[in-house]
Amino acid sequence: MSRPPALHPDVTPLEFLVGTWKGEGAGRYPTITPFSYGEEVRFWHVGKPFLAYSQTTWSLADGVPMHAETGFWRPKPGSRVEIVLAHPSGVVEVEEGGMETVAGTTHIEVATTSVALTTTAKPVNALTRSFTIDGDRLTYSVGMAAVGRPLQHHLGAELHRVH
Amino acid sequence: MSRPPALHPDVTPLEFLVGTWKGEGAGRYPTITPFSYGEEVRFWHVGKPFLAYSQTTWSLADGVPMHAETGFWRPKPGSRVEIVLAHPSGVVEVEEGGMETVAGTTHIEVATTSVALTTTAKPVNALTRSFTIDGDRLTYSVGMAAVGRPLQHHLGAELHRVH
Repeated sequence: MSRPPALHPDVTPLEFLVGTWKGEGAGRYPTITPFSYGEEVRFWHVGKPFLAYSQTTWSLADGVPMHAETGFWRPKPGSRVEIVLAHPSGVVEVEEGGMETVAGTTHIEVATTSVALTTTAKPVNALTRSFTIDGDRLTYSVGMAAVGRPLQHHLGAELHRVH
Repeated sequence: MSRPPALHPDVTPLEFLVGTWKGEGAGRYPTITPFSYGEEVRFWHVGKPFLAYSQTTWSLADGVPMHAETGFWRPKPGSRVEIVLAHPSGVVEVEEGGMETVAGTTHIEVATTSVALTTTAKPVNALTRSFTIDGDRLTYSVGMAAVGRPLQHHLGAELHRVH
């Protein structure tokens, strides 16, 4: 366990994600007050055909933790990506989609194929995520259908690689 | 973010889990060769009403990573527990159940209420987990229905608190 493992070849298409990204975002939804947040995202690997993923956000005003997500990204042949995530709000989700690199900028578009909830979770019905990665800059937007509302823009953020 | 937050009162019933646990386990299933593994489990909190959970296992022979899981444990009134987990094998699951402490030993029994899979994941249909925690010793067993087989014993392990 002491030597860093070699990257699994299946993960090569997502290797550029490995590291720690930090930045700020803003969220809104018809049922809540708009908010902004600080965010840190980590992608790492253990030599197997997936990336581990961990995300935390916090209040810019006082540093208090807000959201978090944790899970795994599974690159698949044909530039496909499968993502499995758990949220502390009692949500698990499977997102699938694809990636494309144009002129050095990579776009990853995924959407939920499954969402499951604990008994006491607020109902989230669907999520979409769009990532744009250009060197050390990562931007994303998240769409959400929840609490009886149709799919619509929920989150947008810009992160920069910190290591 | 520099001062450790106070434990959220909702998490008090699971406070004894916070820390790092390490040990060994053994697994079997009709479709695979029986195996043993090393394991590390971490529970931590950020002052919110859940515990974050991360688990990794490795081959005892060579230290190569085997399984992993990550997610959140949500204690609820009435000694209920909701767990949301993501697996790198392309599985997400919601498990729910309850806990009881008898003569200083805590038993936690949960079972899947939902399992969702990525397109390329091996089909897991249901999981049950039984934990017994007595001071710094944690044992568990996992039952699994997968690849068309009925629910049956899959994993058993004994962990000890390392910090």
